Amino acid sequence: MNALTDIILNTPVFPFLWVPHSILMSVALRATLGPAKWREFSREHPLSCFLLALLYIYPGGILASFIQGQSLIAFLKLSPNLYAACISWYLVFYSPLDVFYQTLIKTGVLPFLTILQDWQRVGLVLSGLETINSESPGYFLYPVVFGVIKSSGFMVFKYIEVGLLQGLKTGFKVPNQQTKTMVVSAVLLQLQILYSVLPISVSDLYCCLVLYTVVMRLITLLLAKSDWDPYLGFENGVCTLVYGAPGSTEITEKKSAEEKKDD
Amino acid sequence: MNALTDIILNTPVFPFLWVPHSILMSVALRATLGPAKWREFSREHPLSCFLLALLYIYPGGILASFIQGQSLIAFLKLSPNLYAACISWYLVFYSPLDVFYQTLIKTGVLPFLTILQDWQRVGLVLSGLETINSESPGYFLYPVVFGVIKSSGFMVFKYIEVGLLQGLKTGFKVPNQQTKTMVVSAVLLQLQILYSVLPISVSDLYCCLVLYTVVMRLITLLLAKSDWDPYLGFENGVCTLVYGAPGSTEITEKKSAEEKKDD
Amino acid sequence: MNALTDIILNTPVFPFLWVPHSILMSVALRATLGPAKWREFSREHPLSCFLLALLYIYPGGILASFIQGQSLIAFLKLSPNLYAACISWYLVFYSPLDVFYQTLIKTGVLPFLTILQDWQRVGLVLSGLETINSESPGYFLYPVVFGVIKSSGFMVFKYIEVGLLQGLKTGFKVPNQQTKTMVVSAVLLQLQILYSVLPISVSDLYCCLVLYTVVMRLITLLLAKSDWDPYLGFENGVCTLVYGAPGSTEITEKKSAEEKKDD
Repeated sequence: MNALTDIILNTPVFPFLWVPHSILMSVALRATLGPAKWREFSREHPLSCFLLALLYIYPGGILASFIQGQSLIAFLKLSPNLYAACISWYLVFYSPLDVFYQTLIKTGVLPFLTILQDWQRVGLVLSGLETINSESPGYFLYPVVFGVIKSSGFMVFKYIEVGLLQGLKTGFKVPNQQTKTMVVSAVLLQLQILYSVLPISVSDLYCCLVLYTVVMRLITLLLAKSDWDPYLGFENGVCTLVYGAPGSTEITEKKSAEEKKDD
Repeated sequence: MNALTDIILNTPVFPFLWVPHSILMSVALRATLGPAKWREFSREHPLSCFLLALLYIYPGGILASFIQGQSLIAFLKLSPNLYAACISWYLVFYSPLDVFYQTLIKTGVLPFLTILQDWQRVGLVLSGLETINSESPGYFLYPVVFGVIKSSGFMVFKYIEVGLLQGLKTGFKVPNQQTKTMVVSAVLLQLQILYSVLPISVSDLYCCLVLYTVVMRLITLLLAKSDWDPYLGFENGVCTLVYGAPGSTEITEKKSAEEKKDD
Repeated sequence: MNALTDIILNTPVFPFLWVPHSILMSVALRATLGPAKWREFSREHPLSCFLLALLYIYPGGILASFIQGQSLIAFLKLSPNLYAACISWYLVFYSPLDVFYQTLIKTGVLPFLTILQDWQRVGLVLSGLETINSESPGYFLYPVVFGVIKSSGFMVFKYIEVGLLQGLKTGFKVPNQQTKTMVVSAVLLQLQILYSVLPISVSDLYCCLVLYTVVMRLITLLLAKSDWDPYLGFENGVCTLVYGAPGSTEITEKKSAEEKKDD
């Protein structure tokens, strides 16, 4: 356990967590552009492709700066991270004979990089909490919301992207169990920072949360069920209790209302 | 008069003005979602519903922070206001048997809450002016624009909302007489702060403006004409003088241009 | 040469460069609204028209403030510039018998105002670099990106405008040779500031770049080819080398993909 804690606390984010993250997000952009269009788009609009890649790689940082009223392009200052992001993007989109991407796919290494990305996200939660706590200490919701946004900016960007491309037809949801784990981490860490509710130190709690996230991701990967969500049962229970269930009557009401609107 | 001034200057915003405001904005969100859809939407997407409620309850504050480059979520720090907002939202959307909303409607108390909301808005104008005046004193337009935005952020959000849902088909307008009163208040208060044009103190002027706003709202309520706008005559006169009237020739031109575009 | 340098360094931006810029951007707004609709729109929605004119006249300033997390309406503080902007807008849209605009068109003076505007933009590049260099010195990309945005905010606004009105169908491009010159200027000036790569002072380099921009604009005007772009050959060469060419195979792929999507 001590050895594990040591590894978790002393592994530098750059390059061990950052490079896998950059590669994964470049691959995510390529998947979003679509297997039929990514090649054409990246050749015709390299500048757009690069700007989108930056948005995909830095969503939490840009969004956190936006929310805190700080420079949106200050991430350009962290040169090594930026170079790694550029190289990842370039290799995923433009490597000769597509050798980089094909290797990633064929070796099956890609899904396991997500473990490192999840680890990085828990770190972002903690650093988000620390940013707000050092600025205005003593609050609970303010740092928690900021930590969640910093670690999960991508879900916000994705929601806006879908809204822009397909219209705002659906409500905003926390999309997957990994992001829900970030919410849980933010809540637990901030409770620990404020009130020391558990008999362990904040860094021990942080290590536990990293391990928990990694294990959850491993289960997801090994069960090969990307939509597995252990929180769903609890969530639905609480929601039904607090908000009431969307009953069948209302669904009919809604449908007829929509039909009316279509007329 | 002294007693009135006393009441106006010494009534704390929370809870006397804030709670009515929170309830009114939750009701406004429910009305926007529509009588056929609000129930389904609030049960299926409680998180979206809550985020929208926050946008409806804090539009001026969020917009003012955005414009000044300050934290967009700093309103989470003012805990009592936030709790009141959450409870108002919850009661309007999820109270058992819809008893809270039905009571509001049946007792007819809802329109009279708008009086307290208008009072709060004049206060927001003044605090907006003070924010800018303490930061960069000696300007006229800068604090006035900021005060208007802080007190009337909702009209901006509403414009964006309509634009997102129905497309940007119409120009931006100051939508109603209450918001025009905020513009007048901002101009008069800033003139008074800068040049002391009237032989009264700023706080006396503030009290007069609150009274004026309340009386204007009462007239609107008692005449039961929600689109009554005493500024319209003056406004149209000035606009025609300064900008010229939209003539009938041009309307024909526009129509033919639109027809051309449709082809 | 000394006299020229003197003129370039000592001409105040206001009014010599600012007023032509304000007039040009008001004319650009009028052109965007369309010859058939501008009159009607400006008479029916003077407030919208004015707000759009401010966005057209202050795009770089507003965008730069947005990116740096500073007050978006601080431009209201620079009163003489604001008054000149208001008067330009008013004259272009509302002058009796449209005499102001017709004079601008008939005397053919309008295109030559763009020379002064280009000059102002090179100045904005330099002031953008200085802003960032004084705040966080020693970086290269950060000030360059900021300088380009400050001098070329209009291309970003235009891209958003087209996206809002017609949907996001096309990638983001640097639209014309003038804006590319701003990129080149930002790179050269920052290289000079950081590393003194050329054996001249920064202000001499600045003067050379202003002269270069003016000459490029003059060539464009006298050849009457608004889409002339001397950078295009170089750019295409580099892009093909670095990113590969959008080949004919892929175009077919893309077309078939789009056809599939339409089905």
